[in-house]
Amino acid sequence: MTYCCGILVRGGLVMIADTRTNAGLDNIATYRKLHIFENPGERVVALAAAGNLAVTQAVLSYLSEGIEDPETGAVQTIMDMPSMFKTAQFVGNAVRRVRDVDGPSLELSASGFDVSILLGGQIGDGRLRLFMVYRAGNFIETTEDTPYLQIGEHKYGKPILDRAVTYDTDLLDALKLGLISMDSTMRSNLGVGLPIDILTMRRDTLHADRNLRIEADEPYFHNLREQWSTALRQAHLAIATPPYPPSEGPADIES
Amino acid sequence: MTYCCGILVRGGLVMIADTRTNAGLDNIATYRKLHIFENPGERVVALAAAGNLAVTQAVLSYLSEGIEDPETGAVQTIMDMPSMFKTAQFVGNAVRRVRDVDGPSLELSASGFDVSILLGGQIGDGRLRLFMVYRAGNFIETTEDTPYLQIGEHKYGKPILDRAVTYDTDLLDALKLGLISMDSTMRSNLGVGLPIDILTMRRDTLHADRNLRIEADEPYFHNLREQWSTALRQAHLAIATPPYPPSEGPADIES
Repeated sequence: MTYCCGILVRGGLVMIADTRTNAGLDNIATYRKLHIFENPGERVVALAAAGNLAVTQAVLSYLSEGIEDPETGAVQTIMDMPSMFKTAQFVGNAVRRVRDVDGPSLELSASGFDVSILLGGQIGDGRLRLFMVYRAGNFIETTEDTPYLQIGEHKYGKPILDRAVTYDTDLLDALKLGLISMDSTMRSNLGVGLPIDILTMRRDTLHADRNLRIEADEPYFHNLREQWSTALRQAHLAIATPPYPPSEGPADIES
Repeated sequence: MTYCCGILVRGGLVMIADTRTNAGLDNIATYRKLHIFENPGERVVALAAAGNLAVTQAVLSYLSEGIEDPETGAVQTIMDMPSMFKTAQFVGNAVRRVRDVDGPSLELSASGFDVSILLGGQIGDGRLRLFMVYRAGNFIETTEDTPYLQIGEHKYGKPILDRAVTYDTDLLDALKLGLISMDSTMRSNLGVGLPIDILTMRRDTLHADRNLRIEADEPYFHNLREQWSTALRQAHLAIATPPYPPSEGPADIES
């Protein structure tokens, strides 16, 4: 499994991805799922992928090695795209190319052809944008109403995002909420695990201002997990006991 | 969709079920999913079901109308079972009977043959027990290590149970935690909705001491939802901002 979330607020973009892959419970490994294509001052594009590892690696290879433009014959890579919209189309094209090759045989297997991608970033004068590319190669993007997207094992970590994230959330608070969301997911699903890769990018800087890996012994994240657990415990203790009165017992039998 | 959870603590049993059924988003209805078979002082058996409504209704009809014992020819209902273990086997048999009749044609449809059942209660001198019956008719039960079971849309409401419920949790606190779990689920999945049916049963009383329906305007549950939201908001506000320092900007390009 995988869990990745992206949050696009007024101040900028947060992307968070775990690193655990598994082919059955007895075959666990660590792979980076958050990939950054950066030319500081010109573009920063970050991509987080969930699904078959072979599929996501093949998509990444197409993005870096390039795809031949059928009209001009020129080979273009993700770094050649002039806008985030064109970048999302390019990623969708790469997904379709992999599906053309591997899809039919994968569809005969239990796992099927499975991939979903978060794609965030900014290019030149364009807007900072965050997309989710589906396995069909089509995509949606965040809006001010719905400023976050998730891929992979998304349900455990969704309630905190639903309750707390708005477009006006501060960028570092959005990072904190994303980490709480990741913590909730890791506690309930063994297929999602440390280390975690994070990226933050302030709007219009064209530069990834935080791009780091959180390991198991990292003190801030460790404390966040402890504090969140303690706070949840206190929160439910502070709620009154249900006042519903007992119904009458069957006195003739109990007496 | 459906969400039901059962929690069996030292003090007794809690069962909670929503009432929303849907066949597509444009076909929503309210059906009771929590059913109680009670002869106070002798037995209390509660059953919550998720899956195809036609399947769960057929299972319930078998339980009430009875199934013929192949050896003796006698027709037995759920009220004739001498123990909770036999009751769970009986429910499993009813599931298999429905599958024999409806399974093959359901498996050809998109929905498939889908049912899962929580079964809790106590009979005579037997132990208070809580089972989950699978679609194959087999079943598991809670233990002191894992005192709760869920069916239906279980992921959104699992983190609070994972963190807070132990076998030593007070019975009414377990009810409160179950309601928080239900709230988290209802907020994230429109297929789970009010009203909610709840049941509590103290160990060795052979009597359902709370058996009631929570409607949308019920003040305690309304306040619980508000308080929980407020507490979560305060909890994440109380956690420090991530201390990760920005990486250096690309001075040559930005200047």
